[in-house]
Amino acid sequence: MGKRPQQPSGEPAAGNGILSRRIFLESALVAGATGAGLAGARAEPLAVQPWMKMPGAGFAPYGQPSRFEDKVVRAIGAPANPATQGVGTARTPLHLLDGMVTPSGLHFERSHSGIPDIDPNQHRLVIHGLVRRPLVFTVEALQRYPMTSRIVFIECAGNSGALNAATAQPLGVAAIHGLLGCQEWTGVKLSTLLDEAGVEPSARWMIAEGADSAAMSRSIPLVKAMDDAMLCLYQNGEHVRPSNGYPVRLLVPGFEGNMNVKWLRRLKLVAEPVMAKDETSKYTVLLKDEKAWQFVFPMEVKSLITRPAPGIALKGPGFYEISGLAWSGNGSIRQVDVSADGGRSWAPAALQGPILSKAPVRFRAAWQWTGGPAVLQSRATDDTGMVQPTRAAFAAERGLRGNYHYNAIASWRIDEKGEAANVYA
Amino acid sequence: MGKRPQQPSGEPAAGNGILSRRIFLESALVAGATGAGLAGARAEPLAVQPWMKMPGAGFAPYGQPSRFEDKVVRAIGAPANPATQGVGTARTPLHLLDGMVTPSGLHFERSHSGIPDIDPNQHRLVIHGLVRRPLVFTVEALQRYPMTSRIVFIECAGNSGALNAATAQPLGVAAIHGLLGCQEWTGVKLSTLLDEAGVEPSARWMIAEGADSAAMSRSIPLVKAMDDAMLCLYQNGEHVRPSNGYPVRLLVPGFEGNMNVKWLRRLKLVAEPVMAKDETSKYTVLLKDEKAWQFVFPMEVKSLITRPAPGIALKGPGFYEISGLAWSGNGSIRQVDVSADGGRSWAPAALQGPILSKAPVRFRAAWQWTGGPAVLQSRATDDTGMVQPTRAAFAAERGLRGNYHYNAIASWRIDEKGEAANVYA
Repeated sequence: MGKRPQQPSGEPAAGNGILSRRIFLESALVAGATGAGLAGARAEPLAVQPWMKMPGAGFAPYGQPSRFEDKVVRAIGAPANPATQGVGTARTPLHLLDGMVTPSGLHFERSHSGIPDIDPNQHRLVIHGLVRRPLVFTVEALQRYPMTSRIVFIECAGNSGALNAATAQPLGVAAIHGLLGCQEWTGVKLSTLLDEAGVEPSARWMIAEGADSAAMSRSIPLVKAMDDAMLCLYQNGEHVRPSNGYPVRLLVPGFEGNMNVKWLRRLKLVAEPVMAKDETSKYTVLLKDEKAWQFVFPMEVKSLITRPAPGIALKGPGFYEISGLAWSGNGSIRQVDVSADGGRSWAPAALQGPILSKAPVRFRAAWQWTGGPAVLQSRATDDTGMVQPTRAAFAAERGLRGNYHYNAIASWRIDEKGEAANVYA
Repeated sequence: MGKRPQQPSGEPAAGNGILSRRIFLESALVAGATGAGLAGARAEPLAVQPWMKMPGAGFAPYGQPSRFEDKVVRAIGAPANPATQGVGTARTPLHLLDGMVTPSGLHFERSHSGIPDIDPNQHRLVIHGLVRRPLVFTVEALQRYPMTSRIVFIECAGNSGALNAATAQPLGVAAIHGLLGCQEWTGVKLSTLLDEAGVEPSARWMIAEGADSAAMSRSIPLVKAMDDAMLCLYQNGEHVRPSNGYPVRLLVPGFEGNMNVKWLRRLKLVAEPVMAKDETSKYTVLLKDEKAWQFVFPMEVKSLITRPAPGIALKGPGFYEISGLAWSGNGSIRQVDVSADGGRSWAPAALQGPILSKAPVRFRAAWQWTGGPAVLQSRATDDTGMVQPTRAAFAAERGLRGNYHYNAIASWRIDEKGEAANVYA
């Protein structure tokens, strides 16, 4: 591509101020787009702040965020069952984060009976059922096996379920979309252990059971177990966090969140699904004709604008980066398009590598906000060719009673004050 | 490659028990290699532990590791200056981690005058000197610019400096090699801001100064600043931690750690290096002929076995994964070889993707420990063709008085009890 002369206000690529993604490749384009509005011209003298006049704090064994970022925390939902504790969700504040990786302290949590306080020396994992040789593993034994690492997203099946409501609710990123996280997970390939146990030819499914007091259980196809499932001992380098399944969690990349069974204690190989409460009373997709989809596993292609977003008001007209995440449980992200006019016109966003299968991709677009109303949308396409549907198309196919696997295009309306709000557009 | 029949004890690939890395690709090979030693045969009945009999803990706004992992912390070195605080290092316990990413709470820290408690609303970053238009940025203004993310290592220039000692010291991974971390860093490309400021043709260097009370300062070639340097606002998704430079740190991928200036307050463009105390009294490489290398920037190709390692004793003869990290400040890792006989024979390790430029690669090798003595080594090769030198070759070239940029092959001796120790071999 030949160099074109720099445009003072950036190169338009779609309506209502969306600029070309070339700005992310050519630094010289940015100054024209951002104008003089961001940096003040008077650089000196630079004040010497009080923290430069005395020694800083000493070293800590385990570091924490700045006290000035104490609002960057998970949003804890109302108790799903007020009679007990730990039933519900803690949601990731994706609008306050950037990049692809979720910090472990902010990874979302969906628990069905709280976080068990598991002693790893007492914990056992059993593989039994239709195997030639039932096996029991200590955590120490699992540590001895060949390991693998993978950067992958986990998304709760119920993420974005709030968008099934008949009218758009006044909610933000965490409340609507915060049941999404991405970590580098490390552990043992499940196929390694199943090969050791010796799977009987009649086995077709596997029941995975957690060691929480809900004994959260799911039926998982054996073909997935043998493909890319892992028994994870580490997340983002360190031991799996209690809220994410310490000391060992099942990972079934791309499948709905709760199939990645936390606190894993049992894998039973069987011929048929067990019809556990966690796949009958929950985690089935109710359709508009009163039928339901059961065993809908991969989370479909989806994207989300994390900034601008509700709670992060724009500070006057000018340049903004539109940033978000796109992911697909069926593969990798091929393209993300963005719109500032509610889907009338689109332009491709810049995608931040590495682009990995079943990992989120950070996308970025350049936007000149005129100060007028705008509706921001993103639309992801994965490498199977699946395109994120409009809300209307999604509703026409499935209805809006499903609660799970909502993946339609989401919209933030920007008003003249620069405030963002959840809208249906 | 055609399938060969499974070997009960794994396929030898080098002396003293190193097996073929095919084991990481073909699960069926593992059972033969691990034998019956790891999993007990009696799988049932599975005890119901106390944590399954009561609801678990509720949700926390910001999660923490399990209380059972309270020994997975940074190793805090003896105070470099007992008269004050925060001068020295906190070292990452790499032997207790796995994967490529370092958890933010365990990322190493090297501070010259403690961790300043910076109010991001008061902090300013100035770009001045040989520019047409000096600029001052608030953190909020920096947040408005187009961002980029990159997974990259940071290694202190003094990492592994303990191996310059004349005799091998009884130290472990954190004490010797723990000044290494890897994060996904997100921020603004420095070239974007330098283009906006308008670099004068006479500018060749840039002085980067931190807002700690040491005003830690380094001279950085302008060519690097314009290439891939970043002003980072996020690490592993969340705001940069105070111990790693909150609210904004300079990132110069692949260059020695302290050039990635933390708490960045000033970038002054100049014609010549400033000869700051932090690049004259420190961070020069003393050679055996009493001369010194100054301005040695990229950290050279290197690797490290993190497991087995001192403090993680082997539990009897049998199968073990040899696991570690390899990285190069000059590019990406092409190959890692491992040896169990002190370098007499080598076999290639499996490399864990994604393999990224200036990011660490997790390598893994399969090892059958006979119970006899062994010396474990790893040797990395980067995509420029540079190979990690032996300690003898390193010493012959530079001597052992340099303290910085030590990148020779390191050795762990395994004794008959399975204990690992730092040795020169």
